[in-house]
Amino acid sequence: MGPERHPDIEPLAFLLGTWRGEGKGEYPTVQPFAYGEEARFWHVGKPFLAYAQRTWALDDERPLHAEMGYWRPQSNGGVELILAHPFGITEIEIGAVTGRRVELMTHSIEGSPMAKEVTRVERSFHVAGEVLVYDLRMAAVGQATAHHLHAELRRVAE
Amino acid sequence: MGPERHPDIEPLAFLLGTWRGEGKGEYPTVQPFAYGEEARFWHVGKPFLAYAQRTWALDDERPLHAEMGYWRPQSNGGVELILAHPFGITEIEIGAVTGRRVELMTHSIEGSPMAKEVTRVERSFHVAGEVLVYDLRMAAVGQATAHHLHAELRRVAE
Repeated sequence: MGPERHPDIEPLAFLLGTWRGEGKGEYPTVQPFAYGEEARFWHVGKPFLAYAQRTWALDDERPLHAEMGYWRPQSNGGVELILAHPFGITEIEIGAVTGRRVELMTHSIEGSPMAKEVTRVERSFHVAGEVLVYDLRMAAVGQATAHHLHAELRRVAE
Repeated sequence: MGPERHPDIEPLAFLLGTWRGEGKGEYPTVQPFAYGEEARFWHVGKPFLAYAQRTWALDDERPLHAEMGYWRPQSNGGVELILAHPFGITEIEIGAVTGRRVELMTHSIEGSPMAKEVTRVERSFHVAGEVLVYDLRMAAVGQATAHHLHAELRRVAE
């Protein structure tokens, strides 16, 4: 059963659950690629959503990316996304939720001494029915901001 | 079964598993408190450990803190810890592993616009047998660096 939802998470409650699907990636420095993805959004009764996702190669299922963190809805319709990435960066994105759409962009990025260089991320999430669509643009490894990821996921569990 | 361990995680493999136990907290701005904790360290075949922990009040089990992120062992004995916190901060700590002891301190901390203020964190983890002991010192909310947390956890699952 779990705890009751904190009322402050209602603006983001449409994200709760486990989502699976496929995406396509591109960037000026890499060959286009396709991937599988699972993303989970859950709550613990407090005023944030916990979030973890992982992606894998469609051919041999080897793990590709992963990230974990927290979505913090604010009383003014704002959203703060607090993320850790295993390639050595932390990221805070801020943005807004409008209906079932969330738009976010970089507030701060920090890299560990051995991290890959990423300087800007822009994300757009949109849920229609049981489908979550997202796009991600980023500036990294000396490139200007460019489209990187597009995926469509279906809710597979509440 | 899961994937084989990446050889680079061997220096931190002693942390793998699920740990549960109790801790005590203190800080100049709060009353001393006791808490329960579960911490999980796992791997996905890549050169890092994924990490998530949560704590709860011993009286009514209401959730207290949580954090998630990644531990990145480096070839020189170094460790990078990449963390997201639900109260609105990201944290990168760097340090070293010696035997079954890890010592870490802040490399960078960033806060979201609505985050609590934390400026420095120092952590020490030590595993002896099936017991993991950690201490955490921090500087936050205008205070100098002071002892904040001490906990002893036992491995309850590999």
